[in-house]
Amino acid sequence: MKPIEPIAWSDGQLRIIDQTLLPTEYRVISLDTADAVWEAIKQLRVRGAPAIGVCAAFGVVVAVKEQHPGDGAAARQAAMNAADYLATSRPTAVNLFWALERMKRAAESIHVSAPAADVIARLETEAMEILEEDQRLGRAIGEHGAPLIHEGYGVLTHCNAGGLATTGYGTALAVMFHAHEAGTRFTAYADETRPLMQGARLTAWELQQVGIPVTVLCDNMAGQVMKEGRIQLVVTGADRIAANGDTANKIGTYSVAVLAKAHGIPFYIAAPYSTYDPAVASGDAIPIEERDPTEVTHGFAKQTAPDGVDVYNPAFDVTPAELIAGYITERGILRAKDLGNLAAAS
Amino acid sequence: MKPIEPIAWSDGQLRIIDQTLLPTEYRVISLDTADAVWEAIKQLRVRGAPAIGVCAAFGVVVAVKEQHPGDGAAARQAAMNAADYLATSRPTAVNLFWALERMKRAAESIHVSAPAADVIARLETEAMEILEEDQRLGRAIGEHGAPLIHEGYGVLTHCNAGGLATTGYGTALAVMFHAHEAGTRFTAYADETRPLMQGARLTAWELQQVGIPVTVLCDNMAGQVMKEGRIQLVVTGADRIAANGDTANKIGTYSVAVLAKAHGIPFYIAAPYSTYDPAVASGDAIPIEERDPTEVTHGFAKQTAPDGVDVYNPAFDVTPAELIAGYITERGILRAKDLGNLAAAS
Repeated sequence: MKPIEPIAWSDGQLRIIDQTLLPTEYRVISLDTADAVWEAIKQLRVRGAPAIGVCAAFGVVVAVKEQHPGDGAAARQAAMNAADYLATSRPTAVNLFWALERMKRAAESIHVSAPAADVIARLETEAMEILEEDQRLGRAIGEHGAPLIHEGYGVLTHCNAGGLATTGYGTALAVMFHAHEAGTRFTAYADETRPLMQGARLTAWELQQVGIPVTVLCDNMAGQVMKEGRIQLVVTGADRIAANGDTANKIGTYSVAVLAKAHGIPFYIAAPYSTYDPAVASGDAIPIEERDPTEVTHGFAKQTAPDGVDVYNPAFDVTPAELIAGYITERGILRAKDLGNLAAAS
Repeated sequence: MKPIEPIAWSDGQLRIIDQTLLPTEYRVISLDTADAVWEAIKQLRVRGAPAIGVCAAFGVVVAVKEQHPGDGAAARQAAMNAADYLATSRPTAVNLFWALERMKRAAESIHVSAPAADVIARLETEAMEILEEDQRLGRAIGEHGAPLIHEGYGVLTHCNAGGLATTGYGTALAVMFHAHEAGTRFTAYADETRPLMQGARLTAWELQQVGIPVTVLCDNMAGQVMKEGRIQLVVTGADRIAANGDTANKIGTYSVAVLAKAHGIPFYIAAPYSTYDPAVASGDAIPIEERDPTEVTHGFAKQTAPDGVDVYNPAFDVTPAELIAGYITERGILRAKDLGNLAAAS
């Protein structure tokens, strides 16, 4: 199942969903030049770490073809230049650099005397592999997590851990996509997720695309829907999982986890195993980044708080391991204690 | 202390703060005709049950003076007509009808042969009494609650239970105003309170006016600020308190109460004793009104969720009595069990 295609490569063309127009407009745009790819990443037309990496990888292919290199050496040089250029589009995106490094190594792996077409074919294969690896990851997370959703369940999620940030599956939403594909009928509940509204804008839209019934609610209504007995499972994504299982994720995740605990509802994290960082002992070691106050006060083309007011705007919070029933990864559903064992074994 | 004057009567003139312009503009407007008063209530320039009642009461005075009645009988008739007219401005506002009924009875209490000036004077006195009663209520609630706030506390509130909805004191904010007046230094935290943002727009503004340090946060950050140890007390208002102490208030209050409990932070309700309704056995008997989905999806002059998505938008929720440390009323701070005893005694 491929619920949506945020990034598609076919007939040698790169196409993406312009996410800046969602949820009010669905438009697929072609990126035919390195400049167009650079601009799309810069302007958040494509967003989410895995999606940016995949888009940039294909951007290298696009850039080399655009140059019509006369031989393999010229193609290799064009690939190196394109990778360096595209790396400047989002200077803090680790996945972007990682994907572009892979593309550089792929270009270098072809003998210098090979024709340009061989270099381009190798780059295309590498980009496609990066895309397919991400899809396999999402599918595996979805397959492991789907049995947690039973017929008639209400499943709450926070923010957008969906296909738009990846290559169509995502993490928390992959679980829902697979349960839906397996014929399980359930209702998704999407916290709108202030201040940037990824739940209302993106999660609700993605679930709509595949026909999963979805209800949007303001973040402060999560307790009430739980109290009414509408929620049987909570699944969110993760930015980082510490050695002890404490998990950093979008601001508001911690409140949802506390509320789930108070209502006896299991709370799961869905994330690739690479999110687990044994170098970080616990959540206390994860610094909380604060973001621009205007996201809170001017987030909707309209000022909603008085001038000069203090604002607290942390980008994420940390949910302690004891509130987390399990971690849905491509390696299966792990308990906090298993996270470390698996790391030691691997 | 009078932190702000949402409604002022001086030199025979009615002036209000136009709340539709807050928090970006502070403008006091004069209401010199019955039509102007009607329009101000209709358009929410003045809002909050007590404030609407007081404004309408002075509206009757304005209306009678506008007519220049030749004698007491004409003045009485003008008052009756004005009361009936103003009652149509917000057809569901119980406080509005109650205040206008008082004004009618006041008009009728003057002998039919009295001069018009006597009727007008009686009406003015009655409106002023309604205003002063509300101020006394707020002051008493503030005085009883202020000792709960200690030096250095962080005090979280939800929505706007402040002076703007009343005649300058409010309920939850009255507690803060009085603690501030008593010289206690503390920091207020205002949940922005989706979907209508009363916390960010109104509470933050009111606290700023009197110099109480206030930090605005998105509703989903409440758990995080508690976890960081920034909050020592939570105080909110109430729409209705059931016989057993269960309390209906703005949506999101219940989530805040659960989070407070999980962090060992006392959660108080501040409300006039009249909010206690012994006829309602428990919170289960309070129906949850659902409001227009567009408040959630189109609340900021910008669509934030996809077309056709389901939306859950309850106006309020019910916090069970076991999560409430006490009820700050004009009769003192009561426990849930005392609410009923006091009702039986009075």
